[in-house]
Amino acid sequence: MTDAIRPLGGIRVVDLTTNMSGPMATMVLADQGADVVKIEALGGDPIRTVGSGHEGMSAYFANNNRGKRSIAIDLSKPAGRDIVLRLVDGADVFAQNFRPGVIERLGLGPDVVMQANPRIVYASISGFGSTGPLADAPAYDHVVQALSGFVAIQSAGTSEPSMVRHGVIDKATALQLAQAVTAALFRREKTGEGARIDVSMLDAAIAFLWPDGMMDHTVDEPQVVLPPTSRSFRVTPTADGHVVLVTLTGAQWAGLTAAILDDEGDAAMQDTAERMKGGADVMRKVRAALASMRTDEVVKRLRAADVPVAPVLQLDEVATNEQVLASNTVRAFEHAVLGAVHQPRPAPLFDGQAIDPTPAAPRIGEHADEVLREIGCDQSQIDALRADGVIG
Amino acid sequence: MTDAIRPLGGIRVVDLTTNMSGPMATMVLADQGADVVKIEALGGDPIRTVGSGHEGMSAYFANNNRGKRSIAIDLSKPAGRDIVLRLVDGADVFAQNFRPGVIERLGLGPDVVMQANPRIVYASISGFGSTGPLADAPAYDHVVQALSGFVAIQSAGTSEPSMVRHGVIDKATALQLAQAVTAALFRREKTGEGARIDVSMLDAAIAFLWPDGMMDHTVDEPQVVLPPTSRSFRVTPTADGHVVLVTLTGAQWAGLTAAILDDEGDAAMQDTAERMKGGADVMRKVRAALASMRTDEVVKRLRAADVPVAPVLQLDEVATNEQVLASNTVRAFEHAVLGAVHQPRPAPLFDGQAIDPTPAAPRIGEHADEVLREIGCDQSQIDALRADGVIG
Repeated sequence: MTDAIRPLGGIRVVDLTTNMSGPMATMVLADQGADVVKIEALGGDPIRTVGSGHEGMSAYFANNNRGKRSIAIDLSKPAGRDIVLRLVDGADVFAQNFRPGVIERLGLGPDVVMQANPRIVYASISGFGSTGPLADAPAYDHVVQALSGFVAIQSAGTSEPSMVRHGVIDKATALQLAQAVTAALFRREKTGEGARIDVSMLDAAIAFLWPDGMMDHTVDEPQVVLPPTSRSFRVTPTADGHVVLVTLTGAQWAGLTAAILDDEGDAAMQDTAERMKGGADVMRKVRAALASMRTDEVVKRLRAADVPVAPVLQLDEVATNEQVLASNTVRAFEHAVLGAVHQPRPAPLFDGQAIDPTPAAPRIGEHADEVLREIGCDQSQIDALRADGVIG
Repeated sequence: MTDAIRPLGGIRVVDLTTNMSGPMATMVLADQGADVVKIEALGGDPIRTVGSGHEGMSAYFANNNRGKRSIAIDLSKPAGRDIVLRLVDGADVFAQNFRPGVIERLGLGPDVVMQANPRIVYASISGFGSTGPLADAPAYDHVVQALSGFVAIQSAGTSEPSMVRHGVIDKATALQLAQAVTAALFRREKTGEGARIDVSMLDAAIAFLWPDGMMDHTVDEPQVVLPPTSRSFRVTPTADGHVVLVTLTGAQWAGLTAAILDDEGDAAMQDTAERMKGGADVMRKVRAALASMRTDEVVKRLRAADVPVAPVLQLDEVATNEQVLASNTVRAFEHAVLGAVHQPRPAPLFDGQAIDPTPAAPRIGEHADEVLREIGCDQSQIDALRADGVIG
């Protein structure tokens, strides 16, 4: 059941999450071998209809729910709640990202679920935690970007404020939750004890931005004052496109100036502090020279000089980039609903082996019958649940 | 040794990583109770001197290395390598992010280390994996952003291409690695087997961007075509600042138009697909109205209408925001080198308890003597190692 690429083989997850933060977290667990039973409302997870795709399944949904099984349950009905509790009985992880208070009103709060199964890891995502003026506010990635500094750092020194244009906080939350749940499962192996894990998106956003993004808001009285690294994240135009390059070491700086200006430059500039203070003039000359060179030529020269550089690829160029192809990162497969689908494999290799993410995202309620049979329902009971509108 | 907030208590990590991707990963483990022994070059991790801080310790370093112990070792000396192998003997995790081939030349490749300790989880981060034209190229967050689509999605429809202005890929890599290492530790509890984990930054970047950012590059022939969610990530000017708001449901859309235009609008617009197609005209009117309203007023009205909204906070406003204060997210403590330091606690709560990140980042080699004593060195041996330049 468990092997190197399925370290979480044997783990069962009862997954009530929707949208991206929760589903991406449980997809990480599914990729690593967990059996994730996705419990959807009768209308399905809302992201089934967000963005392009097919009727009933968007690409967005497929990208966050691969390898899961789906059962659609009306949780407002007592018989629906009973199904969840019977699934909890044999489960290792329970995950939910309703607004605070909702899961308790459904009769599936941590007290109830952890009493039914004390070994379970009960994982919750909230927008803003359980206290404070925003505890009950609707949370989306966008608004948490505004509150956590993500928008400020994107906008510093620009005329028009901007954001990270994808759900960076949902995804950072997903990964922090997946790691914490896995740590709790590790501990359970030693102690037999379940755990309750709570992650707020606001906390996850701040923890994710802080290490570098908040470096100038960490120390009250710095003795050494240098520009923040955020300034180094800029795109450089070439004659026919754009490149990104970066020089963090003296050797890289010397390589850049030698390769582009045919000039080793001021030796003092090889010192990081000197360069961060006085490098702007030289960089202006470098950028002027690059603006009249072709992207190919810039990349070739700078790679030869061991300067970190890359052309800016368009979204449709990523999967077919020669390095991405060499890494066999993006896989193509046929999906029963969506037809030809392209998705990246999970990044971690285990003992040198890649996880192949082929198992497809489910249709709404696709696995209802098999999941119900596993918890002991016979066909007449399943038919009755369906006739009563308890399952979809 | 292990309790709810220290699920990784008892785990020892031999950590040779530098910069951000590796150190942030091992900091996650340290936060959860692991004993992380950071092995630095005699000159220290390069990020000790990147950005503001004090001599020998930048805020950037402190934010990625809290709770670790440091020993500075000259790994080019056989006696230096021997110290690492003696540490490996009692360790659970080994982590490194040198360029491909370097760790093998140091005599500390996975074959050597996993033979010395078959139960170890050997974790490596590379820029681009072990094959392909860029396998040996220097990798920094910046260039991986260019190759993985992060720059393209930031730049779509703008006159000037831009990037995420912090190390989003380093950090996404860190979290994916930390989770995979934790999963391998979980599996080891069941099987007794160690594991080798490899994550390339390019793979981690693509896996992180894809779920939503590549939604329009997932399905070859979508039957339903809608705008990508990336377009919804935009900042809205007000009379005295900026807000971020988002309307993904029909109810939120109705709330927005009612609150700002005193108009429930076209009922058809409550349908997601209709709204994504025809909502632009209404949004122009909404934005025009918001441009003449104060931020406070916009936030108040939209919160009352249950529309997700937030003012755009500046970086220095984040830690003192009332919701952040209510969550007790950012902690202040005195650091022996840096003085007053502010850092967020880890986002996950375990059994309702927060991890307090007080333990400070180490000075170079601060814990050399105690670490060496733990592996059986006496004071005369330690003195000799120092006199020979093996340790700093």
